[in-house]
Amino acid sequence: MGSTAHRIPLLSRMTPLQALLLLVSCIGVTSAAKPLCAPPRVSPENPNVIILMVDDLGWGDLQSYGNPAQEETPIERMVREGSRFTNAYSADSMCSPSRAGFITGRLPIRLGVTGGARVFIPQDIGGLPKDETTMAEMFEERGYATGMIGKWHLGINEETSTDGAHLPSRRGFQYVGVNLPFTNVWECDTTKTMFPDGPNGTKCFLYDGDELVQQPMIFDDMTQNLVDDFKFFIHQRKAEPTRPFFFYFSFPHVHSAQFANNQFLGSSMRGLYGDNINEMAWAVGEVLDTLRASGMAENTLVILMSDHGPHAELCLNGGSTAGLKGGKSNSYEGGFRIPFVAWQPGTVPAGRVSHEVISSMDIFRTFKEKLPCPEADEDKEDVVLDGANIWAELKGTRPKGTFDLMSKRPIIYYCNTHLMAIRLGKFKVHYKTSPIFRNGTYEGTKQMCPGGKPLDDWYVSQKCPEEHLISHDPPLVYNVAIDPYESYPLVDDDRVTQIRAQASRKILEHRMSITPVKQQLGHFNASVMPCCNPPSCICNKLKKRPFTLLNSPTTSPRSDRFQRALRRAMLEKEELNWSDQEYDQLE
Amino acid sequence: MGSTAHRIPLLSRMTPLQALLLLVSCIGVTSAAKPLCAPPRVSPENPNVIILMVDDLGWGDLQSYGNPAQEETPIERMVREGSRFTNAYSADSMCSPSRAGFITGRLPIRLGVTGGARVFIPQDIGGLPKDETTMAEMFEERGYATGMIGKWHLGINEETSTDGAHLPSRRGFQYVGVNLPFTNVWECDTTKTMFPDGPNGTKCFLYDGDELVQQPMIFDDMTQNLVDDFKFFIHQRKAEPTRPFFFYFSFPHVHSAQFANNQFLGSSMRGLYGDNINEMAWAVGEVLDTLRASGMAENTLVILMSDHGPHAELCLNGGSTAGLKGGKSNSYEGGFRIPFVAWQPGTVPAGRVSHEVISSMDIFRTFKEKLPCPEADEDKEDVVLDGANIWAELKGTRPKGTFDLMSKRPIIYYCNTHLMAIRLGKFKVHYKTSPIFRNGTYEGTKQMCPGGKPLDDWYVSQKCPEEHLISHDPPLVYNVAIDPYESYPLVDDDRVTQIRAQASRKILEHRMSITPVKQQLGHFNASVMPCCNPPSCICNKLKKRPFTLLNSPTTSPRSDRFQRALRRAMLEKEELNWSDQEYDQLE
Repeated sequence: MGSTAHRIPLLSRMTPLQALLLLVSCIGVTSAAKPLCAPPRVSPENPNVIILMVDDLGWGDLQSYGNPAQEETPIERMVREGSRFTNAYSADSMCSPSRAGFITGRLPIRLGVTGGARVFIPQDIGGLPKDETTMAEMFEERGYATGMIGKWHLGINEETSTDGAHLPSRRGFQYVGVNLPFTNVWECDTTKTMFPDGPNGTKCFLYDGDELVQQPMIFDDMTQNLVDDFKFFIHQRKAEPTRPFFFYFSFPHVHSAQFANNQFLGSSMRGLYGDNINEMAWAVGEVLDTLRASGMAENTLVILMSDHGPHAELCLNGGSTAGLKGGKSNSYEGGFRIPFVAWQPGTVPAGRVSHEVISSMDIFRTFKEKLPCPEADEDKEDVVLDGANIWAELKGTRPKGTFDLMSKRPIIYYCNTHLMAIRLGKFKVHYKTSPIFRNGTYEGTKQMCPGGKPLDDWYVSQKCPEEHLISHDPPLVYNVAIDPYESYPLVDDDRVTQIRAQASRKILEHRMSITPVKQQLGHFNASVMPCCNPPSCICNKLKKRPFTLLNSPTTSPRSDRFQRALRRAMLEKEELNWSDQEYDQLE
Repeated sequence: MGSTAHRIPLLSRMTPLQALLLLVSCIGVTSAAKPLCAPPRVSPENPNVIILMVDDLGWGDLQSYGNPAQEETPIERMVREGSRFTNAYSADSMCSPSRAGFITGRLPIRLGVTGGARVFIPQDIGGLPKDETTMAEMFEERGYATGMIGKWHLGINEETSTDGAHLPSRRGFQYVGVNLPFTNVWECDTTKTMFPDGPNGTKCFLYDGDELVQQPMIFDDMTQNLVDDFKFFIHQRKAEPTRPFFFYFSFPHVHSAQFANNQFLGSSMRGLYGDNINEMAWAVGEVLDTLRASGMAENTLVILMSDHGPHAELCLNGGSTAGLKGGKSNSYEGGFRIPFVAWQPGTVPAGRVSHEVISSMDIFRTFKEKLPCPEADEDKEDVVLDGANIWAELKGTRPKGTFDLMSKRPIIYYCNTHLMAIRLGKFKVHYKTSPIFRNGTYEGTKQMCPGGKPLDDWYVSQKCPEEHLISHDPPLVYNVAIDPYESYPLVDDDRVTQIRAQASRKILEHRMSITPVKQQLGHFNASVMPCCNPPSCICNKLKKRPFTLLNSPTTSPRSDRFQRALRRAMLEKEELNWSDQEYDQLE
């Protein structure tokens, strides 16, 4: 369905102009994929769509969501100019299933993105099922240009270490820049505090389009390279100013391993985790500034969200839920409730805060319904979508205080194949819960988890095996509007009984709508693991980014913006150092 | 030092004009109290000062501090137009000591506002020591006009039930409108869910100036009456446009008993607690609108804060800490960290968020230093102030990311006379902690605390008797910048040892600066309890507010604004009802 990603042979040996010409032609070719419907002319009502997906960002990590230590970042500007949602949910509490749900608008249980390690690992031969339609394919069918950069985590290879059968270029993304087909895992840590031998290349690798180019991946220029590839895509789009596009900017930040380059190291009073947020947020500012500079702002909807809750089990090395219980991998609010910011000047109201219940799966349905394309959808009538159309909610045009999404559409919480809980209106009903570990020690996490957590805990709560789950009979009921912290289960009375009965009916409806599918996770074959030059699996073939070639050093936004970021970060760093000295002087 | 409050004899029988003339003369007299220094001409650099003190408001209760269910209120507008502080601290974690500390700029341990029930109760004969200078007296000495309304809680009578020896009119407040010399306690609940016989008049009474006028107090018109008295004061101040004023608007909201009048009942998806916040916040909007309408906005600093953390022990009937540990009455961050918003258009930067460490005790020192008055201060050289001068921090004129207040000035956490903890820079050292009760059942709290809390717990954690405290040797150390939730005590290493040593030195310095004083709390005499007509102690002699007399019904902001609030609240109420119906229809 998709087309192949562009490649840039010998780019480094070309002049900027040659490169530009070649690249334009590449894009020209790939963007010529036959749409089934003519695209609408881009406009505020039919905007470009950009998704900024942040990895493991907690509900309470941003200053605008209340964090008492995170610095103000360009995301706070995005919040002031756009709308912030406080009751937004991810499709799952782990990366692969959550991203599969987001990109298809369907719960991972329908996709078979379940089982195994709950996420795709490099030796997995499965991926997002090919008969599912991705958001990129849905937009492509409607004539949009499409592109992506960053973390994918929906499968890599199927039979060999190079077939790339599951890569984004095969799933509707016409342009694919630097990307992580897997993810940024803990073993990618370059500080050698956790792993004395340094990063593990077999788990830490970077692609450029479909090509493996860095093993292990290097963090220093990663954010700048992502931003440059985004700018390159925008630069290309100017050739077709009326044609709308869909772009998926999927950050490797702020998943552990935590990282920050010299420009942002020491920029946060929160430490390395806050530095990583500041570096990621700098890129968000670059995206918004680029749109404004290109005159595209009013015609582009930008949504920033997290893929699920923070990795609370990493303690001070993970994010904050601002008191919501649990975190990544479990079914309490801390695992599923995400920061969600929408931005489109003139269309999405500035400074609005919405408590309406929305889901990452809503975006697929919203645009599928906004852009009727019978040719594309005739054979998809029986495909159940779990999202709702939130266009009116994004525009804030519904009567103030209307909560029909909250009332009419349930939020269903799975942990792997286990149905854990359901939210109906203000009420959440827990059938099963995962244990939350707070104690225990593990030498390797001493610094991040003073008092510590055992390594095993992570796997317990990530895979949620049946034998570890706590069943509740009768199910626990919380009013998550009054008690979002899930501290006080409601006392049994007729209302509560009624809520449980209603929840059971909704669950039954839901179960009836699910058809058995093949489990995609947990089918391993070591020979599909990417390795640039066996057995070492170490290389760095990353080419200079095309956008940097298009810009002379003096006008390069890198030298410009990064220097400003540098000055800002260094200023704060000095101040923080001074503050420490101050503390020492007090001795 | 202070003067007597104005009274309004026969006001109800006068024409509005007569009333106005009389009142102007009354104010004329009282505001003629001999200042020791000439007041500065009011200006942005020497602004009027208005303190909006909210009772028991939690750090996480406001939408702008991240609450995921509280509606947008005029406080959010205040935050957009002003600056919000995330590391602001109260002087104590209970009402009377915290307010004593705020109003004198000195820790309650220096004032003897310790012992007894930790707060003044109606049979207490003590009060804020008369040899202490209140903020009102400090401003009065400098020629300011002063006024207050609402909750006092720093003593009532000394020898008889009517001597009013400790009332605000004796402590530098020239104008005193409707006020609660005690507080709004749980026994004032009018819903009869907790107390079948309804409110207990001996604990629930309202004054007008120095006069007991309502027993038990009635909540319905309270907020409107407070707003009208504030507007009356502002109306009076127009007679002396160049003379600055200090006004203390001390809300009975949102202490339990929770209340909301018909205009706000059902206005919040959080339930009654959120309704109460919405009603309080409406009054905040009235204050800001009145200042704008009077042309005083640019010359008036308005600070909204809480007196300490939320009454978490009341569960769903209390506020939210947004995950900070503990709450009212204990020494974790949830007990001492408060919402703090500063507003002065043109002087306090709009939309700024500061993570600097400030204290409610800073306001006294800030203005004492800004307004030198040797005549007033010559005999006060040995009076230790615990606050810092935060004028530059309020104006946001210090270099970005400067944290010298955090680094140089410790925050000291007491529970009654027990020194519990100290914050130095990013680090907090706990010597003792109070237990946090989460379990237990108590019939009366079944609805507010599903799963419940025993009544006794409240007294345990409020009085913190020695035998209930947990001592830590070595003391617990947290980095509250990285871990504001106090989840992970730092593991012993040289740095931590150094921090403990530094903390000990600071504690020693602090202890050396304390001179023994008489304990003000816990000296009881039942005959000083206010009672309008023994033995029933039931009456309602509250006169129509002067400001309402000054405004014809048609132009009355009451009929105007309250109607708009009514329409808004009713709209949301319908929607919430509809949402419930929706839920029922789903049956």
